[in-house]
Amino acid sequence: MHYFSDNATPVSPAVMAAIAAADRADHGYDGDAWSAQLDGALSALFDTPVSALWIATGTAANSIALATLCPPYGGVICHEEAHIVVDECGAPGFFTHGATLMPLPGEGAKLTPDVVADRLKAIRPDVHQVPACAISITNATEYGLVYSPDEVAALGELATAHGLGFHMDGARFANAVAHLGCAPADITWRAGVDALSFGCVKNGGMIGEALLFFGDSAPARAAEAKRWRKRSGHLFSKGRYLAAQILAMVEGDLWLRNARMANAAAQALADGATGRLLHPVQANELFIRLSAAEAAILRAQGFDFYDWGDDAARLVTNWSQDAASVAPLAHALWALTI
Amino acid sequence: MHYFSDNATPVSPAVMAAIAAADRADHGYDGDAWSAQLDGALSALFDTPVSALWIATGTAANSIALATLCPPYGGVICHEEAHIVVDECGAPGFFTHGATLMPLPGEGAKLTPDVVADRLKAIRPDVHQVPACAISITNATEYGLVYSPDEVAALGELATAHGLGFHMDGARFANAVAHLGCAPADITWRAGVDALSFGCVKNGGMIGEALLFFGDSAPARAAEAKRWRKRSGHLFSKGRYLAAQILAMVEGDLWLRNARMANAAAQALADGATGRLLHPVQANELFIRLSAAEAAILRAQGFDFYDWGDDAARLVTNWSQDAASVAPLAHALWALTI
Amino acid sequence: MHYFSDNATPVSPAVMAAIAAADRADHGYDGDAWSAQLDGALSALFDTPVSALWIATGTAANSIALATLCPPYGGVICHEEAHIVVDECGAPGFFTHGATLMPLPGEGAKLTPDVVADRLKAIRPDVHQVPACAISITNATEYGLVYSPDEVAALGELATAHGLGFHMDGARFANAVAHLGCAPADITWRAGVDALSFGCVKNGGMIGEALLFFGDSAPARAAEAKRWRKRSGHLFSKGRYLAAQILAMVEGDLWLRNARMANAAAQALADGATGRLLHPVQANELFIRLSAAEAAILRAQGFDFYDWGDDAARLVTNWSQDAASVAPLAHALWALTI
Amino acid sequence: MHYFSDNATPVSPAVMAAIAAADRADHGYDGDAWSAQLDGALSALFDTPVSALWIATGTAANSIALATLCPPYGGVICHEEAHIVVDECGAPGFFTHGATLMPLPGEGAKLTPDVVADRLKAIRPDVHQVPACAISITNATEYGLVYSPDEVAALGELATAHGLGFHMDGARFANAVAHLGCAPADITWRAGVDALSFGCVKNGGMIGEALLFFGDSAPARAAEAKRWRKRSGHLFSKGRYLAAQILAMVEGDLWLRNARMANAAAQALADGATGRLLHPVQANELFIRLSAAEAAILRAQGFDFYDWGDDAARLVTNWSQDAASVAPLAHALWALTI
Repeated sequence: MHYFSDNATPVSPAVMAAIAAADRADHGYDGDAWSAQLDGALSALFDTPVSALWIATGTAANSIALATLCPPYGGVICHEEAHIVVDECGAPGFFTHGATLMPLPGEGAKLTPDVVADRLKAIRPDVHQVPACAISITNATEYGLVYSPDEVAALGELATAHGLGFHMDGARFANAVAHLGCAPADITWRAGVDALSFGCVKNGGMIGEALLFFGDSAPARAAEAKRWRKRSGHLFSKGRYLAAQILAMVEGDLWLRNARMANAAAQALADGATGRLLHPVQANELFIRLSAAEAAILRAQGFDFYDWGDDAARLVTNWSQDAASVAPLAHALWALTI
Repeated sequence: MHYFSDNATPVSPAVMAAIAAADRADHGYDGDAWSAQLDGALSALFDTPVSALWIATGTAANSIALATLCPPYGGVICHEEAHIVVDECGAPGFFTHGATLMPLPGEGAKLTPDVVADRLKAIRPDVHQVPACAISITNATEYGLVYSPDEVAALGELATAHGLGFHMDGARFANAVAHLGCAPADITWRAGVDALSFGCVKNGGMIGEALLFFGDSAPARAAEAKRWRKRSGHLFSKGRYLAAQILAMVEGDLWLRNARMANAAAQALADGATGRLLHPVQANELFIRLSAAEAAILRAQGFDFYDWGDDAARLVTNWSQDAASVAPLAHALWALTI
Repeated sequence: MHYFSDNATPVSPAVMAAIAAADRADHGYDGDAWSAQLDGALSALFDTPVSALWIATGTAANSIALATLCPPYGGVICHEEAHIVVDECGAPGFFTHGATLMPLPGEGAKLTPDVVADRLKAIRPDVHQVPACAISITNATEYGLVYSPDEVAALGELATAHGLGFHMDGARFANAVAHLGCAPADITWRAGVDALSFGCVKNGGMIGEALLFFGDSAPARAAEAKRWRKRSGHLFSKGRYLAAQILAMVEGDLWLRNARMANAAAQALADGATGRLLHPVQANELFIRLSAAEAAILRAQGFDFYDWGDDAARLVTNWSQDAASVAPLAHALWALTI
Repeated sequence: MHYFSDNATPVSPAVMAAIAAADRADHGYDGDAWSAQLDGALSALFDTPVSALWIATGTAANSIALATLCPPYGGVICHEEAHIVVDECGAPGFFTHGATLMPLPGEGAKLTPDVVADRLKAIRPDVHQVPACAISITNATEYGLVYSPDEVAALGELATAHGLGFHMDGARFANAVAHLGCAPADITWRAGVDALSFGCVKNGGMIGEALLFFGDSAPARAAEAKRWRKRSGHLFSKGRYLAAQILAMVEGDLWLRNARMANAAAQALADGATGRLLHPVQANELFIRLSAAEAAILRAQGFDFYDWGDDAARLVTNWSQDAASVAPLAHALWALTI
């Protein structure tokens, strides 16, 4: 069984069914019946008027969000291990026309208000220095940690106080909400978030994430984002196949049910990996100490995963697994230790 | 029945089946088994070693192709009614970082060597003027006309003589080949084309076109294009679903069979529209004189299509139609005249 | 005597004196005493509060102005022979991050409201097409013609009606005002102009033009322009040497006196070139029919100038000439004909 | 007496004389007699064929150099306190179209091969991560430290081994050479440097630095840089006034004589500041511990300088000072301590 990535997983059956159901003639681009329902469905989910777009990938959603929040001469406060910093080949720089990422340290890839405040204080307000214009955080983080509503709100207050836009990379937003048991609103607009990359693909989708804007400026930002979407070649001819996926995710809380499955599977693995965990397990990722010899033993038993530097490994669970299905690996991990 | 656009059409059943067949775990991005077959399948189709990438949309494929062929300070010779000029919200300017489109006139949205040569001659070779670095043509054109192998080759010779890259927007490449009855190679690399946007979506695909590079520099250009693909947010997490579609298109010449259907349907309509045609019908588009009153009559009979300015209309046929299925509109058109 | 270009001319003595006077210690960049006077001096000259910056070149001033008026996905309505189109190596595309120039025809490189209105009407208001966001005109034009206050105002009304920014390339603004005998305000903010590239170098300066913003949004646009100025490497370490030049130009109306000299010299030449003029002579440029043989005769007499295509030439007069000093060429031109 | 910045200083008399001597008619842009001598003069100085351009500012020279060495999807290894990182408002991001600066720590703003090698090792060679494409160092550094020939060469070897371009920001190159007593070649092309921003303004110039390219690829890179220079609005109409300054600097080794004066003045101050130095004094900058009370005492005596965070100050000497002229401040510093 593979634990490479939630990207390696097939598509959730309900999503596949929704794609099939969308397979009939309709207007092109986002002029179809499915795309027209996005704002409504996501406004209901987030309990506030939302402007929503389907976007092909998380990288594009993040970058387009940042392009609406930060001018080319501005900077984006973010974690030094954020996906936008290390795994997008500079996409934010492309979409923002050269805005500066301002990477900061922090345990488990989480930003803390103190570190952010210090960075802001260090910027001279003259034209020689790049002014911070936005904060971007990832929830759940790249290490599977989850920002609580209070933690997000503390950063949101900083953003508001300094006139910064606030973006959340939610590639694993569902896993965060599933862990917290809160309302989606609690860690987004109620905590000051202006723009959310609402991930679907890792959570059972095929192609397409949702980009959401909150607040009074949402319609204007979404209108601008639609320009960027077209200008960057992301306005699909047959957008209905993307919109249908997102709607299927929202329908009956599939997004949350899928995330709960993945999280539960991760917890089951964590039980087997006591003493090995490099980070607490809150979402669907485990980072564990694992020697090369131990990794070889597991692989010999048919478990696939990525090494994480030397003497460590990353295990990612997904919507198609449950505690039972990962029990063999949990046991194998436990067996390594005794 | 709608004649809005080939984008409005459902997905070809074989493509849908291929998507379903790809719905199993595999490596993410383009590390999967389907993506690995693209070079081979398209090299076979084009009878030469080809470097191929799946790309989400035609706009992205065109823009990434141009980014590999033209520096920011360069210019792209193209037709003034080309899709890259009028319908991509400036995407080529985004991907090339501000390269200049150099639009030229020409009957039926076709470039001719004379017009191109005159434009090239008018550019002073100093740093004050933008040097032409590439030519881009659309085959079939935005008016449904087809460049013959000789016509492409004449432009290819100009490109070679002036050291220009040569790109073909093949959103309806299949319709062009179906009309010509030639080998795909005859209107591409044998005629000097360096990069081809090989359209699938209008021809029965769901999401994804292929971007092809020909010639000795193909691997280097493809490697650079892969950087652009990632950097522009176009490297899908689950790329296998795109690769599978392209492979399905190539398999058993589905691409050609679909295009022949659409072309035949267009010819059937053309027979009914004698005397109304604004351009010869060679691919799957008709541009016809049609008064507002006549348009209303057709619409009252259930035919949907777009107006084309005043007193004209555009009718687009697609892979799901045949001569029989469009006979009612052909007859209705004929009936308007008598 | 040379008639190549007003760029080929030495610096006006008063400007050179001002540079020498500025040659003492002061704060760097634009923190000096001279830079601090720019807003005041130009506000007085234009009879309205103006936000002004020194900028190295006309190309940079034009481009930075456009960057404040037009987003990357927007378009700039301009003349097809405008300097920004043909002689800046795509600089506007660089500074605007790929905004689209929308070149239009017009006699003598002048835009007319009808042509502009038609172009605006042809743009579909969807995300596929580039929306016009600004108009840019050159006064005096690249052919030495001058827009009157009414002509500018007619374009200004169009700009206002469509929510477009309005920029004037005033590389030869002084020559235009000298020809019209109007107030500088009459062809700028009173006629709807938002941003003016106020040329100094062709008119006796060494290095440095002024970029002016008018109206309520002027301070915000100037603040943004200062970011662009720094970001594009145009914030000189010793800006006082530029500011001093601009102040010297304004002082005692040197700018206007210099332009009147150049214009008068051009008129004197025009008298000798009766029957040869390709355009009326209003500023300091003459475009004349001149065979290769005739050109050779003039050059043999020591007159230097550029050919203008075949059988034509461009003659540019400058601030250091007067009617008397150009009399020999005027006579030589007249002598060619008899 | 001011110690704010070498930018605050007047122009060296020989430079002013050269400007006056250039004040006659010649061809515009870089078509003049002075510009034509740059390659020759700098090739002689560097003892190798050099391709040289005048560029308005250090920021522009650095950025254009990097634009020729690094594609938009690439990264530039540099020090975290480098001018390109903290004081150019993101200019390198603008000119490179969003390339990523990769800031590293290091004592005194100096990069060491170990730190660079570790950073290079950490980059995965896939399309998700930004590949390093260039190294940029500043000599003398932002803290006035000087890289020796061996130190530069060690970084140059790393650059060569990894196929990276190598750029030197030489805003205070003259001070570095004056300190080392080596040939200019020893810390540039002989040590692997591809491109040098050769500073003049801080060293007695008015406006204009030189950008130099070394090696076989120099002519091609310079040709590309000339495109960027025009496209970024940096091709001055009257370039002769810049070229003349650079030639005056090279003539009779004025550049070196001026730098020696500034360095000697800094050494004299350093003698008075024993025990206060935050960095060794090698060039013309001192960073000293200085309490607010002490700073007030010095300012009351008429010495002007910038605070450097809390309890520290920066003192910059310049070409117009010598050990005698700075003796009063040296004494005042010494007097603070006793």
